[in-house]
Amino acid sequence: MTTPIEYADASPQVRAVYDDIKKTRNVADVNNFWKYLARDPATLKRTWESVKEIMAPGALDPLVKEMIYLAVSVTNGCPYCIASHTFAARKAGMTEAMHCEVMAVVGMANETNRLVTAYRVPVDPAFE
Amino acid sequence: MTTPIEYADASPQVRAVYDDIKKTRNVADVNNFWKYLARDPATLKRTWESVKEIMAPGALDPLVKEMIYLAVSVTNGCPYCIASHTFAARKAGMTEAMHCEVMAVVGMANETNRLVTAYRVPVDPAFE
Amino acid sequence: MTTPIEYADASPQVRAVYDDIKKTRNVADVNNFWKYLARDPATLKRTWESVKEIMAPGALDPLVKEMIYLAVSVTNGCPYCIASHTFAARKAGMTEAMHCEVMAVVGMANETNRLVTAYRVPVDPAFE
Amino acid sequence: MTTPIEYADASPQVRAVYDDIKKTRNVADVNNFWKYLARDPATLKRTWESVKEIMAPGALDPLVKEMIYLAVSVTNGCPYCIASHTFAARKAGMTEAMHCEVMAVVGMANETNRLVTAYRVPVDPAFE
Amino acid sequence: MTTPIEYADASPQVRAVYDDIKKTRNVADVNNFWKYLARDPATLKRTWESVKEIMAPGALDPLVKEMIYLAVSVTNGCPYCIASHTFAARKAGMTEAMHCEVMAVVGMANETNRLVTAYRVPVDPAFE
Amino acid sequence: MTTPIEYADASPQVRAVYDDIKKTRNVADVNNFWKYLARDPATLKRTWESVKEIMAPGALDPLVKEMIYLAVSVTNGCPYCIASHTFAARKAGMTEAMHCEVMAVVGMANETNRLVTAYRVPVDPAFE
Repeated sequence: MTTPIEYADASPQVRAVYDDIKKTRNVADVNNFWKYLARDPATLKRTWESVKEIMAPGALDPLVKEMIYLAVSVTNGCPYCIASHTFAARKAGMTEAMHCEVMAVVGMANETNRLVTAYRVPVDPAFE
Repeated sequence: MTTPIEYADASPQVRAVYDDIKKTRNVADVNNFWKYLARDPATLKRTWESVKEIMAPGALDPLVKEMIYLAVSVTNGCPYCIASHTFAARKAGMTEAMHCEVMAVVGMANETNRLVTAYRVPVDPAFE
Repeated sequence: MTTPIEYADASPQVRAVYDDIKKTRNVADVNNFWKYLARDPATLKRTWESVKEIMAPGALDPLVKEMIYLAVSVTNGCPYCIASHTFAARKAGMTEAMHCEVMAVVGMANETNRLVTAYRVPVDPAFE
Repeated sequence: MTTPIEYADASPQVRAVYDDIKKTRNVADVNNFWKYLARDPATLKRTWESVKEIMAPGALDPLVKEMIYLAVSVTNGCPYCIASHTFAARKAGMTEAMHCEVMAVVGMANETNRLVTAYRVPVDPAFE
Repeated sequence: MTTPIEYADASPQVRAVYDDIKKTRNVADVNNFWKYLARDPATLKRTWESVKEIMAPGALDPLVKEMIYLAVSVTNGCPYCIASHTFAARKAGMTEAMHCEVMAVVGMANETNRLVTAYRVPVDPAFE
Repeated sequence: MTTPIEYADASPQVRAVYDDIKKTRNVADVNNFWKYLARDPATLKRTWESVKEIMAPGALDPLVKEMIYLAVSVTNGCPYCIASHTFAARKAGMTEAMHCEVMAVVGMANETNRLVTAYRVPVDPAFE
């Protein structure tokens, strides 16, 4: 149903986004995510500009941001997102040991999130 | 219905866990999470031992682990967990700027996770 | 904004559902869930008839059904549902020890569900 | 990216866990879940010990525990977990009729969890 | 494990539901969803009757209902449901431009839902 | 911990966003969501610009967009979002009857999403 839009077939508006992604990330081609999103040029542009701004180095370095992105993607059960952000996190320096620790934290957080909910634990005054 | 178990009222088995939490974290008392979980001493012990092992410094430092825990807790919508891991992350060095960046990444990840799912994007061969 | 509809103020259609709930469950009044749902009499009737059919004794006894309902409610993070199905499960015979075991299974399932997703584990041929 | 670790290729630490799984469950080989988790021996060991403790007969019998595990796995949308815990539940005695009833309860719980949330129903005093 | 039940192999009870679906929707055959659900004739019947009642034209037209169904299915990450309700929405008149707008709203809602949760925003008095 | 930023205390950058919200929506003050988000001016600006673009009239009218937003918010269990988008949808013309139908569709979608997942229904060729 949905088909990806390759650079050669893209409108000037879509190409401008692809060009900026390729330049910003120093890659030869954009990922499937962008090629599928390109059917909606306005959402493509808005999403890329938001991702570009949010994932730039800031108070947190890009590796930490990619690991957080990965943790959310696992929790939401998005296989594509897990694959793409594992790839990106490795490129940014995530080692095998770091990867295992991210997954362990994600697993434990999902468990204790539910235990807290199950036992309806009230917030400690010290946290506020 | 569920009531927290304070140190003074705890069984020796529960006290042993509380003592280890207080010593490991260098705190005067344990959080409500542990006091509510104490109604099930086996789960209290198992959960604490898992958390202690997973959250110890390793390939990732404790601050990064706390921020990942926070990201998962926001995605799962657990207010207690958000409060407790925000508190813990700040104690571990999370600045206001870092906090804002964690939240921005979490928000964006939740958006793109759904867009990827909506457009049923196939995994790029390069990711494998 | 939404307000509960008490028996005295209910239309004959809503009263008929309330009467059937009270008779089926042998209770003096219906829970808030039904009183809030009553603003939409068609949904009230349809939901009650479905719940009545599904929760009746069958291949599984009502206690097991209530504990499954509770497990789903914890996973979805619905505090009202946790409270009401904990109440119902206790009425159906759930002991404190059973309750703790339900919660432990729910916590562990939430953890391993995410670990399986994170590591993209393929289904074993033996399972099919 | 991730590859399963077979017994022949496993370290002594991983083999010890595999041996305990095989002995405890009386099976010839471990499932893919454990083979993929084995890339992180600490998480393999911790997860197995937790699962072993939680899923042992207690106040609830193993069949009920497996059906609760299945109910959570469906709610979280984990296909591997659904397949593996359906398999395990059947082995523990789940009939086709029981299976259908578990699914019906899970479906209904997911519906009413959202209706309760949508109508923001307050907890009945009787539940506390 | 689960296999679909075709019309030719269906019991009279199941055939009666299939016939009503085909007549109501003016289609030559029922979708896989119904064929798989048919292993549990009671759930098949109850689910179809609920869907038929809920999705009928009312205060909202069928197109709007299908787009809401699609939005929920994306949020829950159900690929089959996304495919089937995209198909149904198109049949009911959803254009490509409408489809893109539904997806954009779903993406944004998932982002702001988490930001609101993250910042624990209290409800404005004006909303009540 | 987090505190809202009122107009009088806001920086020029934050005030510019508040002014645009007030003008675009023709309201005297902005909602709490924006006042809490204002602690992160970059996210405030980016989020508002995205919401403004996405929620503007297009192929779908604002009422339909608000009902979709509400459906997602219920599915994600965000009470603030449910309150704010119910308010917005009513302002855009959602009647009581429409509201009940949105909720009925959301409830049913959450039920069938899980049944489809539970029975691992394959996509019909006709949907592609």
